[in-house]
Amino acid sequence: MKKIRVTIWNEFVHERQEGEWGDKIREFYPHGIHNTLKENLAAEDLEIRAVSLQDPDQGLPDDLLQNTDVLFWWGHCAHGQVADELVAKIQRRVLEGMGLVVLHSGHESKIFQRMMGTRCNLRWREIGESERLWVVDPAHPIVRDVPMTFSLPHTEMYGEPFGIPQDGHIVLMSWYQGGNVFRSGVAFQRGAGRIFYFSPGHESIPIYHDQNILKVLANATRWAAPELPPQPTGCWHDADPAEPVPQA
Amino acid sequence: MKKIRVTIWNEFVHERQEGEWGDKIREFYPHGIHNTLKENLAAEDLEIRAVSLQDPDQGLPDDLLQNTDVLFWWGHCAHGQVADELVAKIQRRVLEGMGLVVLHSGHESKIFQRMMGTRCNLRWREIGESERLWVVDPAHPIVRDVPMTFSLPHTEMYGEPFGIPQDGHIVLMSWYQGGNVFRSGVAFQRGAGRIFYFSPGHESIPIYHDQNILKVLANATRWAAPELPPQPTGCWHDADPAEPVPQA
Amino acid sequence: MKKIRVTIWNEFVHERQEGEWGDKIREFYPHGIHNTLKENLAAEDLEIRAVSLQDPDQGLPDDLLQNTDVLFWWGHCAHGQVADELVAKIQRRVLEGMGLVVLHSGHESKIFQRMMGTRCNLRWREIGESERLWVVDPAHPIVRDVPMTFSLPHTEMYGEPFGIPQDGHIVLMSWYQGGNVFRSGVAFQRGAGRIFYFSPGHESIPIYHDQNILKVLANATRWAAPELPPQPTGCWHDADPAEPVPQA
Amino acid sequence: MKKIRVTIWNEFVHERQEGEWGDKIREFYPHGIHNTLKENLAAEDLEIRAVSLQDPDQGLPDDLLQNTDVLFWWGHCAHGQVADELVAKIQRRVLEGMGLVVLHSGHESKIFQRMMGTRCNLRWREIGESERLWVVDPAHPIVRDVPMTFSLPHTEMYGEPFGIPQDGHIVLMSWYQGGNVFRSGVAFQRGAGRIFYFSPGHESIPIYHDQNILKVLANATRWAAPELPPQPTGCWHDADPAEPVPQA
Repeated sequence: MKKIRVTIWNEFVHERQEGEWGDKIREFYPHGIHNTLKENLAAEDLEIRAVSLQDPDQGLPDDLLQNTDVLFWWGHCAHGQVADELVAKIQRRVLEGMGLVVLHSGHESKIFQRMMGTRCNLRWREIGESERLWVVDPAHPIVRDVPMTFSLPHTEMYGEPFGIPQDGHIVLMSWYQGGNVFRSGVAFQRGAGRIFYFSPGHESIPIYHDQNILKVLANATRWAAPELPPQPTGCWHDADPAEPVPQA
Repeated sequence: MKKIRVTIWNEFVHERQEGEWGDKIREFYPHGIHNTLKENLAAEDLEIRAVSLQDPDQGLPDDLLQNTDVLFWWGHCAHGQVADELVAKIQRRVLEGMGLVVLHSGHESKIFQRMMGTRCNLRWREIGESERLWVVDPAHPIVRDVPMTFSLPHTEMYGEPFGIPQDGHIVLMSWYQGGNVFRSGVAFQRGAGRIFYFSPGHESIPIYHDQNILKVLANATRWAAPELPPQPTGCWHDADPAEPVPQA
Repeated sequence: MKKIRVTIWNEFVHERQEGEWGDKIREFYPHGIHNTLKENLAAEDLEIRAVSLQDPDQGLPDDLLQNTDVLFWWGHCAHGQVADELVAKIQRRVLEGMGLVVLHSGHESKIFQRMMGTRCNLRWREIGESERLWVVDPAHPIVRDVPMTFSLPHTEMYGEPFGIPQDGHIVLMSWYQGGNVFRSGVAFQRGAGRIFYFSPGHESIPIYHDQNILKVLANATRWAAPELPPQPTGCWHDADPAEPVPQA
Repeated sequence: MKKIRVTIWNEFVHERQEGEWGDKIREFYPHGIHNTLKENLAAEDLEIRAVSLQDPDQGLPDDLLQNTDVLFWWGHCAHGQVADELVAKIQRRVLEGMGLVVLHSGHESKIFQRMMGTRCNLRWREIGESERLWVVDPAHPIVRDVPMTFSLPHTEMYGEPFGIPQDGHIVLMSWYQGGNVFRSGVAFQRGAGRIFYFSPGHESIPIYHDQNILKVLANATRWAAPELPPQPTGCWHDADPAEPVPQA
């Protein structure tokens, strides 16, 4: 069996913070969100690498990026530090067919905004309210074996309007105790690549230990994995017409 | 009557070229494509400005951009010279509601690729073959009073696959003598802004003198003009929940 | 000024019911929901007719249907009584360009299911909980001058998954006290016609007296009105090729 | 291995016609288009049944329909004979998850128009001109191992505008010698079911013997096969709220 090569990228800033707040985060994510996800998504058909902005080449040297089938992205306060050249390389890989799973505050990451063409702006609030998710397309592979509804006791609120393009296929929607709603699980295709945005996932809440959340992410990994070799993305000089063009 | 403020931007390189090739282009566009379009689209309800990459601030000082309702974009060989900062400013204006009409080889412009999130790649060929356009959505305002089909005797071929997102509303499609097909008129919404891509328009062919082409562009101008004041594009801290959240 | 010719159709069953329940409904809708909407949407640019299933020709004789620009539809318990022939006629008018505004329990009407091709199924519950609506596309004409969020103190819950096609442009979404979410205001185009589904509107609640609801419906009327004369909907024998086909 | 249960339905009228025209058709389809397709699509993972309107229960008794994963549909002159009750049953099966592959003149079949909500109208012409197909989304599973372009020497022309909803995912587009263009391979989702419309396939032309056409149909079969058991399609009384609703 050919394994799906998954690379989980994390800016890895909050988890290294000193003091009480950092301690709270490390309780759930002792070696960073990326390593927790690596452990919690482990499966026979996946070859998972956990990397971070703190690693050489910002965690994504060319060779690794070239050999990634599905890239997870978690960022929040260090979006601006990601090099524009790296963003361009990732964009090209997605257009070639690499899957991209954008998590939570990654809505404002350079790579997600670059793929969407929009600001991906939204309403937000952090008061520890509860969130309830609903499956909107029960036939979508991303919600295979996921309950039609499930809740998270504490969450950061992300609410509409959400500044994304119109062709997002809505897989899940969220209800918040404080009165907001959100398209929390949305699937896109750009070029040959599949993109899934999934909003739950704050750093100070053990969301990436929740079994339903992990099921969604596990499904999204298989859904986003390319079925074809990398597709060409450039323009093509079609010099010879396929049908005869009489010369005047 | 409040006029629609249209700004027609052109890189203005081919038309200033020395020699025979430049002479041929100047035959159709003596003061540049931007000024020809300005003349040919003139109407009572439009206030049209023609600018170019050769002007100060690359033709789009902040004040002008801020006071533009619909921006036309023609570029080909100088895409790389357009400043990234300017592209970011234009993107923000589109998300706020400014209309954007991207012409011909503008498919590879920084601003169109930025708005789409894709490479907007395609097949191309330049052998002077004919092109026939078909209206695909007869109810769309952009083809009001445009014949269901019309042809251009000589054109540059742009063919599928065209690397754009799935939510493009196809208004027109093209047939080429040499056997290709293309989604030649496609409408998008990004944020509050409307975007129309229209492929006919090579520099060495008098396409911007064709009455059907001009009708499409005139319609697109009115369609793309914003009906609302500039909309906010940033995130919103919705600190107070609209519904009561009991504190534990 | 040419007025928009609006026809508000109502099955008009609940409001004629005897007993206490009927009395409660008549308190808000003394002459039926259709007549209340006619009064509450009255405006200089609209010519509104209120009709019902109880009228001759089920309220929609050919001549009236032919001279309707925008049709409102409210039905609940009498969907099955609407003649299939009438549904076919309405469908044809929508494809020709007539606007259609489907209200509340009209999600299960023959005409809405016919236009969508799906069952338009959903979750529902009636316990008098509150509903909060959110604008999802602030640039859409249907929410012009509508607050970004507003609430209804008592409502019938309609929840996801909602069985509609993927190309619904989501204008509004709803939050329910009991934990559900819903795409409550969705816009479609079918043929030359525009369709808007709007879920609030139970018979025993004074929802069609709410100023925000009425604003949405007033905007939807103008949005759905056709800009063109009726468009042809049949196949077209294009006997003579536009380009030469050499005979072998 | 669980086989995909494919049922190929054909009205089977043209192929039984007497005289010269019928003889010409029988040359290519001696036992009907359905049986030719059954032979030409034969594969280890498929269990294919060929049925026709001429069979008992119009070829689709409940038990067979219930045990069909993917239904092919070829009809032309006998659309009106298909019982409305049968159409309703097929629609329900598609919404439950059954795949539907609609061929050629099936664009005007009751079942396709029912699933689309539109007339699926188009331009047509039959003068034996050539058709050239182009892959529009090279990453789509339906065009796996299909050449980027290929041609058919003789075809019936089907041209734009094609009256289908906006959410069709365009997989292939066609060029015709006589100057027309068409969205010839379009994919939809309705409920849990996947639908593929593919326009080549006239009765008097050996199109269903063409290797590229057969490859597209073979791919479409696997793509349209449901991955889940039949999904519920009705409304759901969600009597108990998931979140507490205080009683006044």
